[in-house]
Amino acid sequence: MDHDLTIHRVLNVIQRATQTASQTHLTALLDRTLDLFVEEAHAEAGTLYLYDPEHDALVFHVVKGDAASQRLLGMRIPASRGVAGAALRAREPIFVHNVAEDPRWDRSIGELASLQLRTMYCLPLIIDDRPVGVVQVFNLPADAIDADEELILLRILGNVMVNVIDKTRLLDETHRRERRQRALADIAARLTTTLDRQQLLTLIMDYARDLLNCEATSVWEIDDEDEPNPVLRSHVATGSRGEKVTGVTVPFGQGIIGHVVATGAIIRLDDVRNDARHYQGVDQQSGFETRSILCVPLHAPSIELGAERGRVEARIIGGAQALNKIGGPFTDDDVALFEAFANLAATVLQLSRLYADTQNLLLGMIKALVEAVDARDRNNQRHSRRVSDFSVAIAEELGLSDEQIFHVRLGSLLHDIGKIGVPDAILDKPGRLTDEELVEMRSHTTKGYEIMSQEELKRLLRVELPALLQHHERLDGNGYPHGISGDRISWIARIVAVADVFDALTSTRPYKEPWSAERAIAYLTERKGVEFDAACVEALARARAKGHPLVKTQVERAMERG
Amino acid sequence: MDHDLTIHRVLNVIQRATQTASQTHLTALLDRTLDLFVEEAHAEAGTLYLYDPEHDALVFHVVKGDAASQRLLGMRIPASRGVAGAALRAREPIFVHNVAEDPRWDRSIGELASLQLRTMYCLPLIIDDRPVGVVQVFNLPADAIDADEELILLRILGNVMVNVIDKTRLLDETHRRERRQRALADIAARLTTTLDRQQLLTLIMDYARDLLNCEATSVWEIDDEDEPNPVLRSHVATGSRGEKVTGVTVPFGQGIIGHVVATGAIIRLDDVRNDARHYQGVDQQSGFETRSILCVPLHAPSIELGAERGRVEARIIGGAQALNKIGGPFTDDDVALFEAFANLAATVLQLSRLYADTQNLLLGMIKALVEAVDARDRNNQRHSRRVSDFSVAIAEELGLSDEQIFHVRLGSLLHDIGKIGVPDAILDKPGRLTDEELVEMRSHTTKGYEIMSQEELKRLLRVELPALLQHHERLDGNGYPHGISGDRISWIARIVAVADVFDALTSTRPYKEPWSAERAIAYLTERKGVEFDAACVEALARARAKGHPLVKTQVERAMERG
Repeated sequence: MDHDLTIHRVLNVIQRATQTASQTHLTALLDRTLDLFVEEAHAEAGTLYLYDPEHDALVFHVVKGDAASQRLLGMRIPASRGVAGAALRAREPIFVHNVAEDPRWDRSIGELASLQLRTMYCLPLIIDDRPVGVVQVFNLPADAIDADEELILLRILGNVMVNVIDKTRLLDETHRRERRQRALADIAARLTTTLDRQQLLTLIMDYARDLLNCEATSVWEIDDEDEPNPVLRSHVATGSRGEKVTGVTVPFGQGIIGHVVATGAIIRLDDVRNDARHYQGVDQQSGFETRSILCVPLHAPSIELGAERGRVEARIIGGAQALNKIGGPFTDDDVALFEAFANLAATVLQLSRLYADTQNLLLGMIKALVEAVDARDRNNQRHSRRVSDFSVAIAEELGLSDEQIFHVRLGSLLHDIGKIGVPDAILDKPGRLTDEELVEMRSHTTKGYEIMSQEELKRLLRVELPALLQHHERLDGNGYPHGISGDRISWIARIVAVADVFDALTSTRPYKEPWSAERAIAYLTERKGVEFDAACVEALARARAKGHPLVKTQVERAMERG
Repeated sequence: MDHDLTIHRVLNVIQRATQTASQTHLTALLDRTLDLFVEEAHAEAGTLYLYDPEHDALVFHVVKGDAASQRLLGMRIPASRGVAGAALRAREPIFVHNVAEDPRWDRSIGELASLQLRTMYCLPLIIDDRPVGVVQVFNLPADAIDADEELILLRILGNVMVNVIDKTRLLDETHRRERRQRALADIAARLTTTLDRQQLLTLIMDYARDLLNCEATSVWEIDDEDEPNPVLRSHVATGSRGEKVTGVTVPFGQGIIGHVVATGAIIRLDDVRNDARHYQGVDQQSGFETRSILCVPLHAPSIELGAERGRVEARIIGGAQALNKIGGPFTDDDVALFEAFANLAATVLQLSRLYADTQNLLLGMIKALVEAVDARDRNNQRHSRRVSDFSVAIAEELGLSDEQIFHVRLGSLLHDIGKIGVPDAILDKPGRLTDEELVEMRSHTTKGYEIMSQEELKRLLRVELPALLQHHERLDGNGYPHGISGDRISWIARIVAVADVFDALTSTRPYKEPWSAERAIAYLTERKGVEFDAACVEALARARAKGHPLVKTQVERAMERG
C-alpha cells in the first residue's frame, strides 16, 4: 500500500469535496457530487437517489450516463426494491461484479439506459442510522474490487458529502415551506381587500392552484335555500374545462366533497378512481378526468362582530378541492397548507357574507320604508324609488366614483323621508294647499333632516343629509327651506332636485296629465343654470337620449309591467 | 514526517468531523465543532465567531475556557477589529506567539476571560471568498508552530466544517423566517375572526410584540374628528407601562410616528435618543425609555365592497411602533415582517370600520325612523325604543345568545312599523275607536309584516318578521291578527308582546293615568301562562327586581331627564 499516494489522494478528495460542498442549490450540489463519485471511481455512469421518508421511496435526482438515461429523473421506486434498496436496508455498500446477473437488479430501470452495465458500486448515504440517499456508480475497473483504498476513498467522499447533502436538502425543503408560508401570508393580505363575493371566489381558486401546483381547483358551498334538501354548489373552478364545473351541484353528503363537508374530514387520494365515494357525475358533466384529489372543508371560524351585534358561530360552509397534483402525489405539506388556506378563505367568505347581509338589510329596509312613506300619498306611489333611479343615472353620467354614486343612491331614496311627519290630510289633499298647509308640507325637508341627524347618524350620513334638506332649493335662491343659492346648495341636492322635478312632471297628478319625458327635459333645459344645475340637467338629458335603463317615467314603468 | 501517523490522524479527524456534522441544531453544531478544534490543537481554550454580513460584525457564538468567559457569548465586535478581524480580512490563518504583545489583540475582550493567554491560532472560515466565521484556539503547545502538519489538520477540519456550519446557519435562519411567516399567516387567520375594534387592536399589539421580540408595541390612528388639526392617537400599547401610552396624542406630522404616518416612510433607529424627530413627550408621559425603534405606516389597501357599494380608496390610517428590540438591533427581516404585518392589521381595521359603519347606519336609521313613526301618535312618543329596551332585558334574562339578542333588538324596534300605513285620524284619536277603526288600527301588524317582507328582506329578517306580525297574538288564541295560540306564536313575538303591554300599561294615555311598574308586572303575572308567556313575564319581573338599567318606565325616564 503506497501511503504517499493515498494521503495525497485523500487530501485531494477532501479538497474537491469541500469545493463541491459550497453549492447551496440542491440540484447543483447533487449533480457535482455525482460527478465527483464517478470520477473518483473511474466509472462510466452513475445515479444518485434521495430517500423520501414520507413515502418510503427512493427518488432519482441525478443520472450520469447517456442522454436516454435522463428519462429516469424524478422517477420514484419503493425503498424495498433493487440493489439500492438492499444497500439502504443493510446500511452497507454493495459491490456487484455483474449487474445483469444480480437477482436484486431492477430490470425495468436498467433497460431505460442504453449503456451496457457490468460492475456496480452502491453506497448508501446514512446519518446516524437515518437513510439520506444512495449513490450508484457503474462500470468501474474490475480491479477496483481488490483495491480497498479506492473504495475507502469513496466512503470518505460519502461521509463528507452526506451531511452537506442532508442539510442542503433540509434547506431546500425549508426554503420551499418558507416560500409557501410567505405566499399564504401574501394571499391573506390580498384576500382581505375585497368583500365582493364573486371576485373573492375567483381569487381563492387562482391562489389555490398556484399554491398547490395542481391542474384544477374548485370551491363548493352549501346551498340551503331549498332547506330540507341542501346541495353543494361548485362556484368557481380553474384549470382546463374549469368553466364546465362551475354551477355543478352535488347532493349533500354524497361524493368525496360531500363527505368532507358533512364530516369535516380531510381526504387525500393518490388515485381517486379506486375510491367508491368519488362522484362520477362531476367528471361526466365536465369531461375532466380526476386522478389525484385533495379535499378539505371550508371551516368558517366564530367571528366576533363587536358592539351589540354578538358573534356568528363557527361552522363548515363548504369545501375546497385540488385535483391532479403535478409531478407527484399530494404531500403532508400540501395538506397542511391547503387546510390553512381553506380556513382563511372560509373566514373571508364569511366576512363578505356578513358585510353583504348588513348592507342588503340596510338598503332593503330603506327601500321598504321609503315606499311605505310614499304610499301615504296615494298620488305619489314609488316616487322616491324613481327619483333615486334618476339621480343614480345623473351621477353615472357625471362620472362620479362608485362611492359617491352610493351616497347619491341613499340620499335620493331618503330625500322625502320627512313626509313621515306631515299629516295625511295635507299629503293627500286633492286640491290646492292653503298657505299654512304649504308651510307644513314644505317642512318635510327640515323634518327629514332632523330625523336623520341624530347622534352618530350625522357623521355616517354627512354626504346624504343635504339631499334631504336642500332638494327644493333653487340656484337662483327662490327655493325652500332656506332660499340659499348657487354653490351654497350641495352637489347631491342639485342632482336630486333635477331628478325630483323630472318625476313630478312625468307623473300623474289629480290636477294634471303626466308630461312626456321629452317635454319634462325641455322644461328643465329652459331653466338650467337659472333654477337647476346645468350639468345635472344635461346629464339627465344625455342619459335619457342614450336609453339609460333607469331613466323611465312612471307611465313607461306602468306600461312595462303591463 | 511520520506519514503513518498523519494518515491515521487525517482519517480520524475526518471521521470525528463528519460525526460532529450530523448535528442539525446550530448551537450544538458550533459547540461540538469548537470542542473538536480545541482537542485537535491540544489547546486550553477557544472561541468561535460567526460573521454577520448585515452589520459587518463578528458575533461570539461559543467560548471554551473558564466560566467567566461565557460572558462573551452574544457579544458583537466590528469585523475590522482584533486578530479575528485581521485573519478574516487576510483570508489566511494567523499564528500569534504571544497574544499579550500583539498590537491587534483586543484587550477589552481578553480581559473578560481570566485565563493567562500565551499562544493563539486564528483560522478564518471562508467559502468562495465569502466570510462565514472565525475559530480561535489559545495556548497550543509552542512546538505546534513548527509542526506544519498539526496546522494542516486544523485547516482540513475547517474546510470540512465550514460548509456544514454555513448550511446549518442558513437552515437556522430559513427555519426562523419560515416560523415567522407561518406566524404571520396564523395571525392573518386569527385577526379576521373579529370585527370588534377594541379586541382587534389588542390582538394586533400582542401579536406584533411576539413576532418582533421587543419590549413594547403601540398602534396609532389618525383622529380627524377635529378636522383642521388632526392628531395621532395611541390606541393600545403593550409592554411595561404600556397602559400609560394608551390614549396619548401626538400632533399630526410631529415625532417619529407622525413623520411615518405623514410620509408613508419606514423608520428604523438603533438609538432613538440621537434623533431629533423623537417626540420626547410620549416618553415623559409614560415613563418608558425608548432606545431602539421600528416604525411603519398602517397602509389600508383599496377595498372592493361589491354590488352597488363600490370601493373604498387606499390610504394611510395610522402607524405601528415596535420599541426596544430584545437581544440586538432590528434586522432587515424585522422590517419586512413588520411592514407585512402592519398592512394586514390596517386592512382588518378598515374592514372592521366598514362593518361597524354599515351596522351603525342600519341601527341608527331604524331608530330614527321608528321614532318618527311613533311621533305621529302624540301619545306614543318613544314607545318602540322602550319596548325594544324591555325586550332586550327579557332576552338577556332568558340567557339568549348575543346573536338572538340582536334579532330581538331589531324585531322589537320594528314591531309597530306598520303604523306608518295607519291614518293619523285613527292613530291619534283621543276617544274609543269604532269597530272599523279598530280593524284599521289592528292592521298595523300585517302592514308591518308586508312592508318588511319584500324581496331579499324576507330572508334577512326571517327571525324578526314574526315580532311584527304576532306581537298582539295571545297564548289562549284571543289575540290578533290571526288568533293563533301557544307554541304557534314565535318566541320573539312572545317576548315583544310582554314588553309591549308593559309599556302600554306604564305609559300616560289621554284616558288613563300611567300604572307603576309593579302594578303592571302584577297584571302580567296574573295572566302568565294564559295570555302571556310565563318565562317572559318572569324574566321581566326578575330584570325589574334586579334594577336592570333598561327596565324603566316612561314616567321614570321623564323624571331622569328632569
